[in-house]
This record gives sequence, C-alpha cells and structure tokens, in this order.
Amino acid sequence: MTIDFTLDPEVAELRDRTAAFVRETVLLAELRMLQGAGSPDDVLRRELQQAARAAGVFAPTVSTSLGGLGLDVRGQSVVLEEAGYSLLGPLALHCAAPDEGNMHLLEKVATEAQRERFLKPLAAGDVRSCFAMTEPSPGAGSDPSQLVTTARRTDGGWVIDGRKWFITGADGAAFAIVMARTSGTGGADGVLEATMFLVPVDTPGFRLVRHVPTLDTGFTGGHGEIELSGCTVGDDAVLGEVGKGFAYAQVRLAPARLTHCMRWLGLARRAHDIALEYAGSRTAFGSRLGDLGMVQQHIADNEIDLAASRALIREAAWVLDSGRSGKHETSVTKTFVAEAVGRVVDRAIQVCGALGISGDLPLGAYLREVRAYRISEGPSEVHRWSIARRVLRNRDDTEGAPR
Amino acid sequence: MTIDFTLDPEVAELRDRTAAFVRETVLLAELRMLQGAGSPDDVLRRELQQAARAAGVFAPTVSTSLGGLGLDVRGQSVVLEEAGYSLLGPLALHCAAPDEGNMHLLEKVATEAQRERFLKPLAAGDVRSCFAMTEPSPGAGSDPSQLVTTARRTDGGWVIDGRKWFITGADGAAFAIVMARTSGTGGADGVLEATMFLVPVDTPGFRLVRHVPTLDTGFTGGHGEIELSGCTVGDDAVLGEVGKGFAYAQVRLAPARLTHCMRWLGLARRAHDIALEYAGSRTAFGSRLGDLGMVQQHIADNEIDLAASRALIREAAWVLDSGRSGKHETSVTKTFVAEAVGRVVDRAIQVCGALGISGDLPLGAYLREVRAYRISEGPSEVHRWSIARRVLRNRDDTEGAPR
Amino acid sequence: MTIDFTLDPEVAELRDRTAAFVRETVLLAELRMLQGAGSPDDVLRRELQQAARAAGVFAPTVSTSLGGLGLDVRGQSVVLEEAGYSLLGPLALHCAAPDEGNMHLLEKVATEAQRERFLKPLAAGDVRSCFAMTEPSPGAGSDPSQLVTTARRTDGGWVIDGRKWFITGADGAAFAIVMARTSGTGGADGVLEATMFLVPVDTPGFRLVRHVPTLDTGFTGGHGEIELSGCTVGDDAVLGEVGKGFAYAQVRLAPARLTHCMRWLGLARRAHDIALEYAGSRTAFGSRLGDLGMVQQHIADNEIDLAASRALIREAAWVLDSGRSGKHETSVTKTFVAEAVGRVVDRAIQVCGALGISGDLPLGAYLREVRAYRISEGPSEVHRWSIARRVLRNRDDTEGAPR
Amino acid sequence: MTIDFTLDPEVAELRDRTAAFVRETVLLAELRMLQGAGSPDDVLRRELQQAARAAGVFAPTVSTSLGGLGLDVRGQSVVLEEAGYSLLGPLALHCAAPDEGNMHLLEKVATEAQRERFLKPLAAGDVRSCFAMTEPSPGAGSDPSQLVTTARRTDGGWVIDGRKWFITGADGAAFAIVMARTSGTGGADGVLEATMFLVPVDTPGFRLVRHVPTLDTGFTGGHGEIELSGCTVGDDAVLGEVGKGFAYAQVRLAPARLTHCMRWLGLARRAHDIALEYAGSRTAFGSRLGDLGMVQQHIADNEIDLAASRALIREAAWVLDSGRSGKHETSVTKTFVAEAVGRVVDRAIQVCGALGISGDLPLGAYLREVRAYRISEGPSEVHRWSIARRVLRNRDDTEGAPR
Repeated sequence: MTIDFTLDPEVAELRDRTAAFVRETVLLAELRMLQGAGSPDDVLRRELQQAARAAGVFAPTVSTSLGGLGLDVRGQSVVLEEAGYSLLGPLALHCAAPDEGNMHLLEKVATEAQRERFLKPLAAGDVRSCFAMTEPSPGAGSDPSQLVTTARRTDGGWVIDGRKWFITGADGAAFAIVMARTSGTGGADGVLEATMFLVPVDTPGFRLVRHVPTLDTGFTGGHGEIELSGCTVGDDAVLGEVGKGFAYAQVRLAPARLTHCMRWLGLARRAHDIALEYAGSRTAFGSRLGDLGMVQQHIADNEIDLAASRALIREAAWVLDSGRSGKHETSVTKTFVAEAVGRVVDRAIQVCGALGISGDLPLGAYLREVRAYRISEGPSEVHRWSIARRVLRNRDDTEGAPR
Repeated sequence: MTIDFTLDPEVAELRDRTAAFVRETVLLAELRMLQGAGSPDDVLRRELQQAARAAGVFAPTVSTSLGGLGLDVRGQSVVLEEAGYSLLGPLALHCAAPDEGNMHLLEKVATEAQRERFLKPLAAGDVRSCFAMTEPSPGAGSDPSQLVTTARRTDGGWVIDGRKWFITGADGAAFAIVMARTSGTGGADGVLEATMFLVPVDTPGFRLVRHVPTLDTGFTGGHGEIELSGCTVGDDAVLGEVGKGFAYAQVRLAPARLTHCMRWLGLARRAHDIALEYAGSRTAFGSRLGDLGMVQQHIADNEIDLAASRALIREAAWVLDSGRSGKHETSVTKTFVAEAVGRVVDRAIQVCGALGISGDLPLGAYLREVRAYRISEGPSEVHRWSIARRVLRNRDDTEGAPR
Repeated sequence: MTIDFTLDPEVAELRDRTAAFVRETVLLAELRMLQGAGSPDDVLRRELQQAARAAGVFAPTVSTSLGGLGLDVRGQSVVLEEAGYSLLGPLALHCAAPDEGNMHLLEKVATEAQRERFLKPLAAGDVRSCFAMTEPSPGAGSDPSQLVTTARRTDGGWVIDGRKWFITGADGAAFAIVMARTSGTGGADGVLEATMFLVPVDTPGFRLVRHVPTLDTGFTGGHGEIELSGCTVGDDAVLGEVGKGFAYAQVRLAPARLTHCMRWLGLARRAHDIALEYAGSRTAFGSRLGDLGMVQQHIADNEIDLAASRALIREAAWVLDSGRSGKHETSVTKTFVAEAVGRVVDRAIQVCGALGISGDLPLGAYLREVRAYRISEGPSEVHRWSIARRVLRNRDDTEGAPR
Repeated sequence: MTIDFTLDPEVAELRDRTAAFVRETVLLAELRMLQGAGSPDDVLRRELQQAARAAGVFAPTVSTSLGGLGLDVRGQSVVLEEAGYSLLGPLALHCAAPDEGNMHLLEKVATEAQRERFLKPLAAGDVRSCFAMTEPSPGAGSDPSQLVTTARRTDGGWVIDGRKWFITGADGAAFAIVMARTSGTGGADGVLEATMFLVPVDTPGFRLVRHVPTLDTGFTGGHGEIELSGCTVGDDAVLGEVGKGFAYAQVRLAPARLTHCMRWLGLARRAHDIALEYAGSRTAFGSRLGDLGMVQQHIADNEIDLAASRALIREAAWVLDSGRSGKHETSVTKTFVAEAVGRVVDRAIQVCGALGISGDLPLGAYLREVRAYRISEGPSEVHRWSIARRVLRNRDDTEGAPR
C-alpha cells in the first residue's frame, strides 16, 4: 500500500541492537572522553570499533561485499539516528564523517586497484581518510567554483599545488581525496573542470600545516590545514575520470548530507532526553520543572522539531533509494535539520539551566558540535539560495515531491 | 521494503484529477466569491458539489457504501491537499469542516436509524451539519472539562440547556451534534460525563442567536452562537452511548485534526505558488524579485515549511491507518502545520508587497482564514502542553514514533 | 545630565489628556465603526476632530502658527502613542497618515500661496489630502527609481501622465501630492529627476479609477488607484523646486516613518491591554489563564517588544530633533517596530483564543491593519537592505549612534 | 528638555579613551589569551589593570572616594559597552562580574570596618571576590527560596553549613559574600530569612571543592563549587543586617543585571564588526558577501538588535539613576539583551562561515561566553515569568514606563 513507514524486522532489530550498544558501551566512552581530552583519538576509535564489530553493528553503510551491513539509505536513516545518540556512536559504528562519505564515493567510482589499495583498508577501519576540498580565501569555500588548487599534467602523472583547510580528520588519515582544478580559471565567469585525486599523506609535497582550532572538537583528527606543494602523483591517483570532480562531489554530497542529518538527529534526541530527565526530577518555584509552562514549551518544541526532522529524513532517504538525485529534498532536509538540531540542543540547555552549560552534562559539548553543522555541508544560506533558485527555475517540476 | 512514499496509481490519478478540477473549476469560483460576498453560500456549495460529482472527485473521505471515494487517511492526505489548493476546494469536494469530521464520526458510532436519517443526506451533500461543543466563558473552550451545557433525563428523552458559540456552519445546518454534560459537575476537580446528541435545528428550544463575526469568512454558514433552552430530544437522539461524549470527541478529533492540516497545506502551497509567480516576474532595484536574497529566503523557507508539513502529515496518516490512536502524532503535526501554514501565507504576502495585501490577490483572504487555525482544533499552547505532558509521563513510550 | 527620559510637564499633561480623550470618546466610536461599516468616513472624522478640538488635543504635530500644538518629534512620540491607542485616535487628533506627513512636508517646502491654498485648510481639518507616489508594475513600488509617471513641460505648466495606486485617502481628498518624473528615464542604470506637484482632484485628467480593496480598512478614503491622463497643472503646482522630488520625499519620509511607529505602538499597547484583561479573568485547566506559563510568555514578550519599540522611537525622535537626517535610526526603528507590533497583536489574539479572532474584540481588525505595516513605508526587506548597505559603506560612521 | 540622549562631554571623552585603550591594549591581550590558556589568570588581570590605571580608565563604576571614576548608571552604560568590546575589557577596567556587583553592594551596605577590610583592597584591584548564592539541587538555583545553606547562631558568631556552586571567580578570591538561611525552612510554602556574610576564603570550614567545568571560560577564577562545613565567622562578618539577605540581593541585582547587559552589548558589537569586516572583503558566487541578500539580512538584524539593546539599556539606566527600583525595566532589558546578544554573535558566526567557528576568529569563544548569559543572572524563563506576573498584578502601574 502507498505511504508506509513500517520498518523491516531486520532493520528494527538492528536499530534496537545499535541502541543497546550505544547505551551500554558508547555512552560511557563519551563521558570519559568529555571529561578527558575532549576529542576521540585513534586508540579510542579502534577500541570502540572493535566493540561494534563484536556487537554486530559495525559499518552499517558499507556494502556486504566489503564486510559491512549493506543498509540502503532508509535503513541508514533508522540506524544512524541511533548511532548518533552519542557523539562517539558514528565513530564506533564506522559511519562517521568523513570516512562514511568517502567510502560511499569510492564504492561508486574507484577502480578495482583503488578499491584494493584505498577502500578495503578504509572499510575495515584499518585506516582513516579525509576529503580535501575547502580552501582558504579566495579559494573554494561555499562556492566551489572558486577552486584555486591546481593539478598540472606531467609525464605519467600530475603535480598538485594549493592549500586546503577545515579538512576534517586530516591528522592521522592515511590518504586524502583532493579536489583540484585541471582546466579553466574559475571565478564568477569562468568555466573550470575539477578532478579528484587519491593522495596518500606521505606523498612528497603533501603537508599537514596545522590543526585549525574550531568550536567543535568531536572529530578524530580534528580539522587540518594542508599545503600541497609540487605534490606529484601518478595517473592511477585520479579518482574516476579526469574533469568529473564536481559531478563526483555531487555523488558524495546528497547522501552525505543525509547521513549527517541522521547522526545529528540522534544527538538532538539525546539532548532532549537529558532535558526530559532533568525536567522530570528537578523542582523550582514549588513545581516540578516539567510542570512549568515555559519548560513544557521547550519540551514540546523539541518533540516537534525531532518529529519533523525525522519525517523529512525518511522521505529524502526514500527519494535517494528510488534512484533519483534527491538534490532538492536533501537540501531542504539538511537546512531544516541543521537548524532544528541547533534549536533542540539549545532548548535542552535552557531547560537544564546552569547545569546545562556545565561539564556535568554533555550538552555544552553538543552545542559546540552542532553549531558547526549550520555551516558545514553547505551553510543554510547557500542551501536556501539553491532551493529558491531551483523552484523558481522550474516551477512545475515536482520530481521527488510526493504530493 | 520499509519506508515507502510511493503512491498507489489510483491515488495518484485521483490527485491529478482533483488538481485539475480545482484549477479548472474551483479557482474561478473562489475569485468570484472573494470579489463578491466573501463567503460561500449554499447555492455556490451545491453548484460546486455538482461539478465535483461530475468530475468524479466528490466525497473522497466518505466510504464507498455511502457513495464516497472511500480513501484511507493516507489517500486523504494526498487528495485533500489538492482540494485545499483553493479555499472552496474542500467545500466542492465535500470534505470541508465540519461536515467531513461529522461524517467520520457518524460512520463510526451512529445507529442504523441515525445513519439513515442524518448521515445519508449529509454524505450526499443534501444537507449540512455542525458540531456544537465550544461554549462562552466560563464554559468549555480549550478546556473541555469546563462544559456547562447540561442534558437532563426526562421520561423518554432529554432536555438540553446551555449556550454554544463559534459553531462553524450553524446557520443553514440541518442538524447539530451537541455535546452536553449528563453527569458530574466539571471544573478542575470534578469528574463529569458528557454525551453527544443529534439535534435537528428545528427542534423547539434550539435557537441560532447570531453569527459570531470572525476574522475568517470562508466557511459556509459562518460561526454561530446557539442557545439551547429546554431543548427536548428523544432517546434516539443520543449518538452512541450515554456518557461517552469525550471518547467520541477523540474519535472525531485526531483524524479531523489531520484533515485540517491537509487542506491548509494545500492553501499554503497555493499562496507559495502565487508568490513564486510574482517573484518570477516582477523586478525591483534592477533585479527580478526572485533573484534578491531576502526574497529567496522567503521562498526557500516556504519550501521547507511545506515539505516538513507534508512529511509529518503523511506519517501521522500512516499511524492512523495502522489503527493506532495517533494522539501524539496528530498533535505534533497539527501544531507544526498550523504555524507553518501561517508563516507560508505571511511570507507569500511579504514577497508580493502591497499587492499581497490587496484584493487583487487572494493572499489577504488566506491570511484571515489561516490565522484562526492556530486557535481552532486546539490552540498551539494546549497542544504543546499535552505533548509535553505526554512525553514526560511516559518517557520510553515510543508508540507511533517510527524511529 | 546626559541621557534623560524625563518628560516636560506640558508634554506629560498633554499625554494624559490625550489618553483620557481616547478612552472616553474615541474608543466608543471605534467600537461603533468596527461593528458597522468597518471604515471611518468623513462624517465620523469631522465629528471626532470636533471633539478633539474641544478637548484641546487637536493637531499635535502641526505648528502653533497653523493652529496646532506644535510638538517636536519627541513630544509627538509621547502623544501619538496615546492617540494610536485606538484605530481612530490619530484621525480624531488629525495626526493620521497621510495628512500628517503631508502637512509636515508642506510646512517645509510650500510657497506662501501654496500654504494658503493647500496647507491651511488641510491643517484645519477642513479637507483631506493624499500622497501619490506608488505605481503599478513596472512602475515605482519599493524601488522609487522605477517611477514611470511623467510630467512634461508645456507653456506655463506641466502635463502629467501616469497611474498611481495604493494611494491612501485618495477617495474624498481635496488634492494629491503627485510624484512625477521630470527628466531621465529611470531604471537600474538611469538617472532620473522627479518633481512633486500639488494637484487638486478636480483637475481635468485626474481620475480616481477604483478603490483598491485591501486587508486593512482603517483609513478614511481607503487606498485608491488614480489615473493621470493629460492632467495639466500650472507652474504654481510645483511643490518646492523642480527636480527635487526625491529629496523632498526624504524630508517627508524619515519623520513620517517615525509617526507611523508611534501610532502603531499605541495600538499594540491596546492589544496587549486587551489580552491582559482577558488573561487576568478567564480560567482554563483549573488556572487563571494569566497563571499559565505559555500565556505568561506571550505577555512578557509583548512587554519586551513594547518597551524596545518605545525606546527605539524615543531615541530616533531625539536624533530628528537634533537636526540630523535620522535615516539610519528611523529605518532601524521602523523595521523593528513594524515587526514587533505585528507580533504583539498576534500574541494578544493567541492569548484571547477564539474570542481574539471574533468581532467581539477588535483584535482581528487590528491584525488586518498592522499586517500592512510591514510592507507600507518600505517593506522590511528594503529597510534591511538599506541598513546593511549603509553600515557596510561606512563602517566607522557613527552619526546618530549614541554609543 | 524632555528625552535627551546627549552625552556629557566628560562621558563622551571617557568613552573614546576607553575605546582607544581597548583597541590598542586589550584586544592584543585577548588574542594571546584565546590562543593560549583560554582564561585570564591573575597575572594577566594585574597587568591589564595596571595599564588601565595608566590610561585613566580604571574602575569606572567605583566611587571617586575609593579611587574610581564614579560614573552614574547612565555613564556606565556608555563606558562599559566600550569595555565589553573585548572579553578582557571589563577585567582590565575592573568593572567585570562578580567584583563589580560586589563593590556596588559593599558600597551600599558595608560597615566602616568592612569597607576598610574588604571593599578598599577590592576596589583597588588588590584582591578578587566572589558571590556565593547558587546551590546544587535541591538548593537555591533560579528559585532563591530553595536556599538550604544555613547559618546557625553561636556565641559571638555564626556557623555556616552548605554547598554552593557556579560561584564565579571563586578560585583565587580573597573572600566570598555567602548567602545563608538564618531562619525559616524555605520551600514553596515556607517563609525564610537569609543573611549575607563576608567570609575570607581562608576561614576554616570554607573549601573550594572543584572548578565546575563550563562552556564559558572567560572569567578569572572560573566557576567554583564550595563546601561550607562548620565554617565559623564572627558577628562582624554579617553584611548589613541579619535577615536582610534577599533585600540586599535585590540591591545588587538590578544594577548588576544592567552592567552585564552593557558589557555583553559591547561584545556583540565587536562580533558584528568582525562580521562586517569579513562580509566587506570576502567574495562568493561572484559577489562580495556583503552584497548578498541573506548576508545583508544578518547584518541588518544585528544592527537592529544592537540598537534596541542599547536603547533599552540607556532607558533602564536612567530609571535606576532616577532612584527607582528598576526591577521591571532591568528584567525586560536583561531578557531582551541576553537573547539579542546571542543572536548577534550567532549571526556573526554564520556570516563568517567556517572561519567563524575557527580559532582564527574569536567568535566561537564569544559564543561560548554569551550562551551562558541567557541562564546566568536569571534565566529568560524566570524573567518572563516575573515580568508577566508583575504586569498582571498591577495593570495600571506605570512606574518607570516613560510613556
């Protein structure tokens, strides 16, 4: 029958198993991390991933041929929300950014040799990777057409020059997927072609300049600034075809947007649960907090934001699984969810008062993580701009809009 | 597979037929109405319903045994959105409030005799009905436990005394479903029982006192104030069982909430389309309006609000079709949609500038209609209160929350 | 000492007298109007203005030499808020738009003959006026540079051709101040000069085509659409100097923006008081409404919006009285106040529930009036655009910003 | 004349001197701190305060008899905004919380001996202090009537027992002002009396248990948790009179609320300036960022929030200088400003994109500081509750509302 939200029993079972794993194993690790270094290092990552393997919840987004659980996007929407219930859940399940998106991209476009060399160890959790696209001003930020990193053809290979920053997971990654301009001059009027390269970090000319300090601290390897200076790679480093970099970025982008939404939705639900726990037990002014109208409003608004986020995610997941591009739906969903998640965490803090901004609860740490999300994966403003342009361009295009 | 938004072909076909009917027939009637009396009278209603019958789109929510199209709630969510694309669409299709909810209720609880006498002519569009629950202060408003209208048992019947107001469609209705207290004293501490009665408007003691003038003017028969003074009915006037009035109100409420959402979503989409049309053609400051960032923001926010509303409605429809109460989901959905619809219409007006508040576009009329919706069917504040209470009461209850 | 909000005793006394006059005389007239025609006609205007004269509160913004009370802008900010406490207050006191702004402009730039002929009877309330600037697409709307109405020089005069709409008060006005292009071609790149003309409505070629129906209905004479077809006037019809139309529009604009803010602030305060009255007396769910947290939030938010609006208005009034242009401050203030007033009225309605949208309270009528205000006198988007451009242009310009 | 925002020349001169001092001296120290420890220690404090003394801007809120600049509240509103332009400005000028509020309180109620012993070294910047009121659950948080710390009378003194947390500046303070219950049992129904005590931190039984880790890190000495266990002080430790603790808290509260607003307004202005700088220079999509509509909207909204905040602060400052309690005005102002400041910093981050959340700009640090401010000094919800209760209680009380 039309319109069905019923879950496959296997997905429901995996959801429950994931939820149990996160509660029983990951939350404790999160607590220790937040009271300690504040960031997950590779030791912690390996330990958690080992536990996830043991619990049968490892690599839900990876195809079964690579040892993963092979969920489609709808299945991911269910399981990744559970993973996201802890900051460390996605890392433990090996479905965290940027590896998750990189694995997806490599599954789609890597050659057999690249699969062997790069994807297999990545899928197994033996190594980490990063995605090197964003550049300092005046390079590619929100506007990819400003790409200034170049890859110049030489005999039997390419020489890459440029600078990248905010490259999540750069420190400790085994390789980077580097986006570089291979023709054209870019800018507002220019037509440019970009190509993706698989660059091991020990390639001469590839250098991690620094950690860019950021408000968020939850990603293993932080956010790096990378200098590419005469960095020479062979033809076998080209990912897919020369000149198709932007097209591949789209391949990675729409589903990656959505997995971000799933994970952050989980974290928002966790924040909400913490606030519920607090509101249900603490008293003030002669009432239980949860019986005060303005607290109830925060709680109800959180329920609403969580429900709307989930409904949008599920629908966009179905669009992707249906084989459509989902550009519009994932853009709409990302914009809503990134803002909703921010509101939910903010309200949860407000409900918990001083405790909410203290290290005695993880909410302050969550706030730091989710703030970035209205900027990363496309700032809300850029998404709104592209949403509006799309609907104006094609007012009767209803592709994917299941009226 | 799990999570499927695919539409049945018949539903998709009915959607398209409904959309065509609204665009080709109803919009013109709406234009005439808005430039004329401002309210649809029974002449217009009959004319439109005749056209809907001819187009095969009449009574989509009514069971086939009664001559309707027999859609389940999910099917309704698709078709009623199309109906709502015009203020007069739901009236034309005979799925407007309050008749739509009343028919649903009567299908569920009316006796065979009541079906014959009340439901059949109602389902056929021969007569209209109203639902008489709300009372002036200090009676039942948002808080039904303040019900003061009484029905007192007499030999072979009941005598009803009380006053009702904001009774949509009262003027011209053939009968009212009257909610009255049949035991208990009500108030904060009291336990009271309510009963529903089917009261023909020509029953002695039943009197339409006045039209309550309201901001909205789109309902046939307006909103009436009714005096019940020694209004005597027989035992056969009891709808369902004595004392079950509040339970039946719930039967009517959850789906009625949702059909409201569907219809208003359609109207919001129409407002958005009007704004798109304007933004796509009008210029200012050397740009097409739709190329200006703040206009694009309005457009994108409308897209987002419409998509989130639709996703929530579809999911709640599935919950109802699954046989669950849907109390929580419809409450969450109603709160979000009522506010989203208001925002969408407001932004559409803002995009259209002075024209937006002029009678040259229907947006001002829409604003008047949708403002009421944040109050009717339960004000946002009451829904938020009940949402918060529910989640606090049962923090691990996930009934209907398709994680 | 620096920074002083103390009121002159005379201003405070006039404020109190105005408040008493509005409460004792004007509110009743408003009630009658809202239950009747919905718009104030000239009979009602004359009656109310006669009463205002008798109460010594007539024409607060008009200079004493013309029989007014001669308040400076700060004094106006105090008294016009009181006038605005009723929809009809500004009309009664003869400080309503558009006459109030027109009188201000004429006092600044009219010749002695024009003062005699146009300003004196206007200041005395003997006649009404209108300001004819806005044009249908593709003419001057938010962007005045799109002005298409032309005034062509002829022997001893000018021939005006064009079309104007949304001309408040047009029906029944004695004369219009018409803005017309007197050189240049306009558009994004064009440099054009505009000139203002004083045009009696009985001038041949000047024709009121229709009332533009609008959401708001509170202005005497409504909003008219005017056709100027070979409309010939003499040189003495030029207001001020040829080619200075846009400069004069600025003369009118900044203070007119502010008097709008003052009046609407008064109406918002009235809406808030109505909601307070209701929240203080009505009960639901075993509580007085005003003791429920979400209602308290509406009330507190209204207090905050009213206080911030008033503080901004007072400061901008001081800037104008200091002889500065106040462009930035009045733009900031207008944007905030127009939106705050809308929020306050909306919350007041929400507090009052169904009664709030009924004709038993004036709130629905207020909503209709104030909605227009986010568009008239420059839509919020245009103000935000000019605010941002100004601060970006001159980041260290602190003119008028009393840090 | 009525309503005057003109600044005294001396205040304007001090404002400019403060602004120059902050730009020339403090901003560099802030940069070093943010790239280093992240919190200002006492070494940095002494160094900065020495520089402030040299620049003649030290202790603006302290009376001249104690070596300060003796500004009234309006003067403070001008100068403290400039101080707040850097996170370290208030510390440098010795007008930071909690010392600033403590000095104000001590000036009002300390005995001569207490002035000598506690106030003089504090005013000179020789020592720091803290204000120990907030308690862990179930003690006094937002609701001071839940105070559970007790002070029990003994021969010639008092024994204090209890626990305090979120005590800003506790680590390194020379003394604490401790609020303790001296009679009554507290709770919703209880009547309790509280008393303030001046407790040197080396008093036996006074122990700093830990630093409470918090999202914000900008206060010297952090936020401490304190255990008072049999902490015995003499009668001379009583601040003011026994039993007047809550009254004194009010003495401290209203002006302290306002000085917080002033300082945070300065920081918000700084965030806005950083965003302006970025928007004015960075390009994307072929435009300067500052020429894109959605960026302009952020900029304009920041201008509006800053202007409204400043206007409210100035007015409330005048109310306090007029000798009135200012309870209502400071509550309204605090609620608005705390939220406005949060919005401004958030928008500034959004304008700056990834750079905004990086350590290359101070905005992320600002976000962490200002988030706390919607909770500290009374959460927004508690202020809204008290604002609503006050206006409902006394609907015609217009004390301090300069209509």
